[in-house]
Amino acid sequence: MNLSEVIRAIPDFPKPGIMFRDITTMLKDPAAFAECVNLLSDEFKNEKITKVVGIESRGFIFGAPVALALGAGFVPARKPGKLPAETAKKEYALEYGTDSIEIHKDALGPEDRVLIVDDLLATGGTAAAAIALVRELGATVASCAFVIELESLNGRAALGDCDAFSLLCF
Amino acid sequence: MNLSEVIRAIPDFPKPGIMFRDITTMLKDPAAFAECVNLLSDEFKNEKITKVVGIESRGFIFGAPVALALGAGFVPARKPGKLPAETAKKEYALEYGTDSIEIHKDALGPEDRVLIVDDLLATGGTAAAAIALVRELGATVASCAFVIELESLNGRAALGDCDAFSLLCF
Repeated sequence: MNLSEVIRAIPDFPKPGIMFRDITTMLKDPAAFAECVNLLSDEFKNEKITKVVGIESRGFIFGAPVALALGAGFVPARKPGKLPAETAKKEYALEYGTDSIEIHKDALGPEDRVLIVDDLLATGGTAAAAIALVRELGATVASCAFVIELESLNGRAALGDCDAFSLLCF
Repeated sequence: MNLSEVIRAIPDFPKPGIMFRDITTMLKDPAAFAECVNLLSDEFKNEKITKVVGIESRGFIFGAPVALALGAGFVPARKPGKLPAETAKKEYALEYGTDSIEIHKDALGPEDRVLIVDDLLATGGTAAAAIALVRELGATVASCAFVIELESLNGRAALGDCDAFSLLCF
């Protein structure tokens, strides 16, 4: 199956000039969604991953089943104010202004090898913040994994020395 | 395994007087998370579910793996403005004010038997809006499924004639 054929391209969303890659057409196709999750998890099956960090909120859709496939725990990286216990927080730059993500401080520790999962690698700001948070909590980032990479935005540069894997490049 | 033992209770979150049931302590435990997803999906394995609708964003964490386990497609019900194609939208009441959720119009049709998944049944407002949206698109709601039900809030009343299943009651 060619997964790129089930990703829908929607011009001018969320604003003019942006070609949005819509994963919902893949998600609603059971065989395509299953293949996507299998390909992502197979890539890391020998990596001794203990925790998958999924980035809110589309990263949850892929991160949760990848965690189950790898026999790892799932840790949500969430928008500010959503997690109820003590968190570590990291700000990152947007085109205009800043945003931030949080992880529970007791969700990760030095014994953990972490796979960070999101649907999309664009400029890499969110993933870089997630990498910094995981390391701040003493865990090791084994790799980041994305369904889609927008190569022209050079997000890998933002990830520094961290490995990155993507299923589809546009 | 007693899943209720891995759900953490956090008093006064998000505001004074609320006892928040924190699922993240279950998610980070691989065996507990796997058992939770298995119990949810086993309940519906003979129901000929074609699509699982997961409610943003914690519903994505359970809905996506349940969809994969059932061989169904996954359809995200999202907060306004997040879905890029044409949507159906439903408003629902909050304690103060209103909120709304959207589903892509082309994500569901009359041929679909739908399981709606969220982490929590509280007052039932969000789930009732999801039921209405699924029916508006011509599909059949087989049931709703929740990890946690807060029985004192009587959310089942808001779901009308729709079946509801919950793993844990508090």
